[in-house]
Formats: sequence, C-alpha cells, structure tokens
Amino acid sequence: MNFHEVDTPAVIIDQSIADANLRKAQAYADKHGLALRPHIKTHKLPLFAHRQVELGAVGLTCQKLGEAEVMADAGLKDIFISYNIIGRHKLERLKNLHRRVTLSVAADSNEVIDGYAEAFAGSKSPLTVIIECDTGADRCGAQTPGQVLELARRIEAADGLAFGGLMTYPPRDRKADVNQWLATAIEQLEEAGIPCPRVSNGGTPDFYSVSEVKAATEHRPGTYIYSDRMQVAFGHGALEDCALTVLATVVSRPTENRAIIDAGSKALAADTCPAPGHGHIVEYPDAIITGLNEEHGMVDLSQCAEKPKIGDKVRVIPNHVCVVTNLFDTVTLIEDGDVIAHLPVAARGKVT
Amino acid sequence: MNFHEVDTPAVIIDQSIADANLRKAQAYADKHGLALRPHIKTHKLPLFAHRQVELGAVGLTCQKLGEAEVMADAGLKDIFISYNIIGRHKLERLKNLHRRVTLSVAADSNEVIDGYAEAFAGSKSPLTVIIECDTGADRCGAQTPGQVLELARRIEAADGLAFGGLMTYPPRDRKADVNQWLATAIEQLEEAGIPCPRVSNGGTPDFYSVSEVKAATEHRPGTYIYSDRMQVAFGHGALEDCALTVLATVVSRPTENRAIIDAGSKALAADTCPAPGHGHIVEYPDAIITGLNEEHGMVDLSQCAEKPKIGDKVRVIPNHVCVVTNLFDTVTLIEDGDVIAHLPVAARGKVT
Repeated sequence: MNFHEVDTPAVIIDQSIADANLRKAQAYADKHGLALRPHIKTHKLPLFAHRQVELGAVGLTCQKLGEAEVMADAGLKDIFISYNIIGRHKLERLKNLHRRVTLSVAADSNEVIDGYAEAFAGSKSPLTVIIECDTGADRCGAQTPGQVLELARRIEAADGLAFGGLMTYPPRDRKADVNQWLATAIEQLEEAGIPCPRVSNGGTPDFYSVSEVKAATEHRPGTYIYSDRMQVAFGHGALEDCALTVLATVVSRPTENRAIIDAGSKALAADTCPAPGHGHIVEYPDAIITGLNEEHGMVDLSQCAEKPKIGDKVRVIPNHVCVVTNLFDTVTLIEDGDVIAHLPVAARGKVT
Repeated sequence: MNFHEVDTPAVIIDQSIADANLRKAQAYADKHGLALRPHIKTHKLPLFAHRQVELGAVGLTCQKLGEAEVMADAGLKDIFISYNIIGRHKLERLKNLHRRVTLSVAADSNEVIDGYAEAFAGSKSPLTVIIECDTGADRCGAQTPGQVLELARRIEAADGLAFGGLMTYPPRDRKADVNQWLATAIEQLEEAGIPCPRVSNGGTPDFYSVSEVKAATEHRPGTYIYSDRMQVAFGHGALEDCALTVLATVVSRPTENRAIIDAGSKALAADTCPAPGHGHIVEYPDAIITGLNEEHGMVDLSQCAEKPKIGDKVRVIPNHVCVVTNLFDTVTLIEDGDVIAHLPVAARGKVT
C-alpha cells in the first residue's frame, strides 16, 4: 500500500532517511572517539532504540522513568535517565529498574542525592549518579564547578551510590564557555581524587560541532533520527533529511488563497521555529501554515503557482518533531513510498 | 487519598468546580432559550458528556469521527461532527456511526457534500448536513450567504441527505457582523423555501454574550467545563473557576530565583495566552513560567516573597486546557481535595 492511502492525519516515517541519519551520526561519533547515547524522546520506539544500539550506541537516554521502563521491557540494557528523580513512588520504580538494566541517573542538588542515597542504602550494586551541570542554558544543573565537587563528594560518601560523571545540556553558540566550565569541574574533581569517567553532552543542534567541547566523552542527540524544520533552520541538514512528515488532507478551500488541512495543533503541535509558519508543506513549498487550531491548519496559498484541491493529501515537515511523536498513538513506517508497518509509539505519553 | 500524593505531572480535575461550570452554562442557555451542544474536545470523557446531557444539553459536538465513536460506544445518542468528513474510509465510518446515533455533520463545499451524497445514496434515513459559515474567523466555511443557498440546494437535491441548518465558529468581538451574516443567509434560504431548523454558534469565549447573535438556536462551548488561563484573560470567570490544574513537582532550584518543575510542553503544551508565561502557579501567583522544554518548566521566582523547595508540589492552571487533556492518558478526579477516580481519557489521541 502506498502511504498516500493512509487515513489522515498520520505520522509517516521514511525508514531509509531515518536510518541514514542514524548511520551518519554514529560514523561522526566514531570518528571523534565519542560514545553515542541517543535520547529516545524523539522516536519513543523500541525498534529504533535497538537499531541505534546495533549501529554502535553505548546505551540510551530517557528523560522519564516511564520511557526507561518501556525500553527495559523491550530488552534494551543500558539506560541513562537524564532527570532528577524525586519522591517515594518514583524512587521505588527506579530501584526496580536498576535490578533490570545498567542504570545511571542525574542529580543536581543535595536533596536529590539524599533521595537516591536513602533509596539505595545497602544496595548490592551502587546506583550510578551523574551530576548535571548548568553550563549556560539556565535550566537544571549545578551552577559552578565548585558545587559539582561538593555534590560528587556527597555521592561518594553515600554507600549505595557511585559518582558516574557529568552531564550538561549546553547553551547554543557558547561552546568555548561550556568547554571551560566542564574542564574546570573535571580538574577540581581530579585534584580531589575523584575520577570523572563520563562527560555527557547533549542535543542534536550541538552534535556536529561536538569536537569543540573537548571534555565530552559521550553525546545524547535525540532529534537527529528524524530531523525537523527547526534543525534545518539551525543549519543542520536539509529538508530532504527530514524522515518524519505528517500526512494531512485538504478539507476546505474557502477562498482562492486559503486552504484548511486536517493537521492542527493536535497533530503538528504549536512549537514555533525560525522559519515562518507551523510546518513546511513538501508538495507546496511556497505555502505558509499561518495558524493552527486543534484540528485545523490554516494555509496561505498566495505565493503558490499551483494550488491543492479539496481531498488532496499533503505532507508536512513539523517545526519540532519530538512533540509530534508524543501526539500519535501509532506511526507509519514506509520504504520507497510503501507502508511496511504501523508501529505503536510504545513510550508515548509516559508523563511520570 | 489527598491529591497531593498523586505522582507528577498529573492532571487534577476538581469535580465540584467543573460541575458548577456546567450548571452555570446550562442555566444561561436555558434562560436564553438556547440549545446547548457542548464540544467534548475539552474533556474527552464519557462521564462528563453524560453529565452535560443529564443537565440539559441536546447533544454533543465532536470534531473527529474517532471522538464521536468513543461517545457512541459510551451510550451518547446525539452527536454533531463539526468537521468536513472526506475520503472513502472515513465516510464508511460515518455511515456506521449514522446507524447508531442521531448524527449531523458539517460541510462547506460541493466536494464534501458530493462525498456525503455518494456515501448515503439510498440510505433509509437521510444524513443531516449542516453548512459551515465563515462569518469572519477566516477558517473553514461558505464565504457568502449566497454560497450557503447554493450548498443548501445541493444538499436538498441529494436523496440521502437532509439540510439541517447552519453553523459558525465566529470571530471574537464582531458579533454584529456575525448576526447580520447569519440573518441574511437564513432570509435567503427562507425565500427559496428551505427552512433552517438549526443555527449553531460556537466557542466558550462567545457563549456568555450569545444573545447578541440572535439567529443562533444552539451553542457549542467546549472549554467552559474546565476554563483556563486564556478564558480568564478574555474576561470569562476567575482563576478560581478553573477546574483543571496540572500537579507538578519542583525538581530543581538551581538559583535563588529559578525553579524547574516537571511539567514542560509535554504536560502544559506550548500554547500562549495574553497573560505572561506558560501557566499560572496557584501556590505562587507571582511566579512566572518563563519557558518550557518537553519535560522542564522554567520558573522565575524573582517576584515571589515565599519560594518553593525541591520536592514541593504545585498546581498549574494551563494557558489552554483542551490541548493539555490530549496529552494525558489518565486524569484524576478530586472532591474536597480527595482523589475519587483516575479516569482514562477515552477520546484522547483520536486523530482521525
């Protein structure tokens, strides 16, 4: 069956493009002697997680316990949860997960470390804790290399925990600062006799300039598997490298220059990007998706020489692909335009 | 169990507030002699759909066939699909649904009407088709009263279809224009001998000024059941009338004035509203959610006298509640702070 026969809106993934994106990234990581630990938040699919490991990834990154549990259920073996895990119920789940996979988890405060320490006290194999560093992105993370040292000492002092290294989600375009920040932290740890086996850097936008952050030993790209309009706007690859599109139907043509498609914010999400509008329509590159309601995408056709008819199907490259994946229970995998599978998005909606 | 014990992020719905919102709207509709046909997109729950009907709603509005199928499965009997249904597969589902419930559906073009006509040719009971009118919101809809008349004639000429009236999703703040538009369309229909039994007006923001659109015989509010920050910003009710909050945990306090909560765009959605930031934190009304990543909400505490600790739970009133409901598989119903049910969001993710 050709993918154009799939009912809309639908997420269509071109397997060849996705696989080429995975292979390219692994080759780049290999060339730079860097471990790859892909973030599964983008695809949320065991199929692609296994493929990433098969190609050479050292393990996976998940942001949620629920995502990690899905991946463990699917037989994945090495998982880093790049998030502070807090609260009795979640810590219980973390302990169960720790029995099943090689697990590491983030922390950026005494409170979070103390939670892990209490939960893992007396554990036969210690929990590996990675300290998150705020190297300028102003999100989570220790604020100074000095704070890193204090937190690492606290981890080392807890009998059920082991200090596993550092992680950061770096700010865009300030690599020299990130490099300096991490290098200083590692130096202070070494001076204190605490080895830092892993330094995990993040994000698809920063991946292909990763050698600028010399301290990094691994990278956690997510979006690279599918790419999206935001990545292209950032200068990473071309629209042709986007493996995921939302197939939509033109449901109304109220005026000469207006089309309405059945992909709104419930299909494309409302995330904006530097390029104009809410997504790129492959068949009508001059069309602009000017607005989204939940089930309606408003399209301005005024710059288009050819214009679609009611009932025509179009493919939309979303602005931000990770949030799109989370909106669909199922995605359709294609090869040479033919449908080869409808896959349940196993780790979708894992909010906790 | 108190709702603060629920694992986060979680959607918490205060049943008393929701029910008060429902009763208030029904009383208003009754007072104005207006039929209420609530849009289920906001709650996506059979429980509340039944309650809306119990209170006096004439039926429901769904935007998706999949939503309507869920409501039919749950025993709801009168459903209007306010959307152009296109394509062989969807028309087959529409026929099946038509056998089970009192169904009406929108159309705004010859193409859509011809699709219905072909699917319902020879049908024992005709399909009720409502013509969507673009009264200024620039979305779907017939562009002029004259076009309405042409479309109504086309519906009347098809043996399996019956013209059921008009619908509009009106522009905000141009009620007089909407009124005039609809009045002219109805007049032209009457002159042509085509009675117009139903004129359906839409949207929670316009509901409490509905008497301004005199032509309307029914209204389709959705958001009114929960309300949200956008509705409050529009002047509809107070923050205390918001029945749905996202319970979140403070997972990091990297600096004096920054908190990170575990509700990001995967919990709150990225929709903006006239009020600043990405949601209102009930316990810290002076805090501003300055940014969202998928699993992180960045909170500026600089204006707060009291500041939350790591591990504290807070409730966030979302900017736009309908998109939040679609992100959670389950919502938690509370009464006087106690959890009374965890409900699966039965019509969530029904994209087709």
